[in-house]
Amino acid sequence: MSATKTTPAFLAAARREPAGHTPVWFMRQAGRYLPEYRAIRERHSLLEICRQPEIAAEVTLQPVRRLGVDAAILFADILLPLIPMGLDLAFVKGEGPAIRNPVRTSFDVGRLASVDVADALAPVMETVRLVRGALDDQVPLIGFAGAPFTVASYAIEGGPSRHFLETKRMMYHEPATWNALMERLVRVLGDYLTAQVEAGAQALQVFDSWVGALGPDDYRRYVLPWSRRLFQRLQPLGVPTIHFGVETTALLELMREAGGDVIGLDWRVQLDEAWVWIGEDRGVQGNLDPVALFAPLSELESRVREILRCAAGRPGHIFNLGHGILPDTPIDQVRAVVDLVHELTST
Amino acid sequence: MSATKTTPAFLAAARREPAGHTPVWFMRQAGRYLPEYRAIRERHSLLEICRQPEIAAEVTLQPVRRLGVDAAILFADILLPLIPMGLDLAFVKGEGPAIRNPVRTSFDVGRLASVDVADALAPVMETVRLVRGALDDQVPLIGFAGAPFTVASYAIEGGPSRHFLETKRMMYHEPATWNALMERLVRVLGDYLTAQVEAGAQALQVFDSWVGALGPDDYRRYVLPWSRRLFQRLQPLGVPTIHFGVETTALLELMREAGGDVIGLDWRVQLDEAWVWIGEDRGVQGNLDPVALFAPLSELESRVREILRCAAGRPGHIFNLGHGILPDTPIDQVRAVVDLVHELTST
Repeated sequence: MSATKTTPAFLAAARREPAGHTPVWFMRQAGRYLPEYRAIRERHSLLEICRQPEIAAEVTLQPVRRLGVDAAILFADILLPLIPMGLDLAFVKGEGPAIRNPVRTSFDVGRLASVDVADALAPVMETVRLVRGALDDQVPLIGFAGAPFTVASYAIEGGPSRHFLETKRMMYHEPATWNALMERLVRVLGDYLTAQVEAGAQALQVFDSWVGALGPDDYRRYVLPWSRRLFQRLQPLGVPTIHFGVETTALLELMREAGGDVIGLDWRVQLDEAWVWIGEDRGVQGNLDPVALFAPLSELESRVREILRCAAGRPGHIFNLGHGILPDTPIDQVRAVVDLVHELTST
Repeated sequence: MSATKTTPAFLAAARREPAGHTPVWFMRQAGRYLPEYRAIRERHSLLEICRQPEIAAEVTLQPVRRLGVDAAILFADILLPLIPMGLDLAFVKGEGPAIRNPVRTSFDVGRLASVDVADALAPVMETVRLVRGALDDQVPLIGFAGAPFTVASYAIEGGPSRHFLETKRMMYHEPATWNALMERLVRVLGDYLTAQVEAGAQALQVFDSWVGALGPDDYRRYVLPWSRRLFQRLQPLGVPTIHFGVETTALLELMREAGGDVIGLDWRVQLDEAWVWIGEDRGVQGNLDPVALFAPLSELESRVREILRCAAGRPGHIFNLGHGILPDTPIDQVRAVVDLVHELTST
């Protein structure tokens, strides 16, 4: 037990080692449901926060203080690397990200800037350093990036998409252009994640949030080789990696093949079944429905218990939501989940 | 072979009988991708068309003439039954349906009108009769309704939803109110589908389009009993039923349990794997990605072949998309799919 006392629970679980208790953190744990975050957002835009390390660090630390979670996750946006590549990104109130010069042709891919992303996004690396300096040893910092598909989909669509029509159109009509774009993104995202680890990130999550829009054949052909290349690039960094997406029930085995020490699950799938498909040599993260945080406490608790029952105390489970915390989520309920997971799993 | 000559291919396949060829139709085959439909929509709103049987019949028949599909599907909207129940429904350009008095409380459920839906939606039944009179014997008419969950979600949210927060909130906080609403909807939707069959509909599709927002436990608890009750109500009508939803990979076995002679698949799942989960005693419908209709013809064809390969010529496959046709879909590509499916599967 002495090893688990010094290894933070989150890192132990990410390596499928006994962890003392099941670690828990929440996607978007730094976000609008926290009044202290809203107070900062009143004065600063999302991009301003990302560019000001002191503020980004403060926002990263807020949920750690408030909730007692087992990991911090860097406050940033998956689209940041597109800015130094030459895309004109803005966040439009109520509509999310908007890119005014989306990538649609091989010419567009060709004019993407070759960029030293560690340099161009130096404030992110400084945020990592500041957060690491402020965090307790038992609370590791997770760095992150979007996966090549999800970042490409924003670059191509120019914003959030329902049908991913332009993205798929490029795949099907211009596979060479698609491949060129993916190659560029793998390189930049690999550099970006490497720089985060060099700055102090102790684990990495790769968000392929929208890859569930693809059928398995498309995933295998257009995504898997590039995601695999990214994960291969991350392996020598020596930090555990988490590979996450939503609506991925039919893709979990392929995502496992692409890489990741831990596969993130959304709430659409039962955790124990998913773990069988993924295989026992990987960890799993998840998978409470974010809307369950709006349920009566007794109902919420029974859902937490059910997820822990599915995980059956096996090393390698990191408790999380199946997607990000929603803006109006009651904080007390979030705290209750942290406490309950700790209470029920402490050995 | 004489039986299959007189039974239309669509009806034979829906009953898992040899069908002469794999039947094909498309969800939203009557829609904006057809210029003749757009011409009518320039003069009439969606609700106007639904209320004028001659126009609704014409719109229903347009794709049958244009594409040579094996079935017609009634032109209507899944939310129509909510109107006589007292909900103030409008279609807002670019935003979809909007209900100005959504159902949020037990009081709201209580004030829903008890309605003779066959009478209140008499124009729909008249449309069914007109279409049946105009259709060739080999092209059956599919009637349809929304499933209780999907209709309830619109009634509660007041329009399309991303997180189904209010719907789940009612389930979790007010299960009695939820059950009362589902009971009302099952009755009205059962009456509505019965009236369609009495008017001449030869098969029924139940659209639980958004049920994939739920995890399996929620489906089992809040949806399955009501969907099952609806399908039990439909059984004595003697027409085949299709049970469809999207993002349902993890729910297919439960949907099968709820009912339906044929289970509709979206494109996220491989058809042969899904058919194993669903069981050989049911048919399957699907499952081309609607965006594949924008691919180069050779690519589109190889995808059609792959789906047919997965179906392996087993009786009980109805070819369709995994969701509705998108507005800008090229008609030639849609026609090409019909022709290819017929060509490759004719015995």
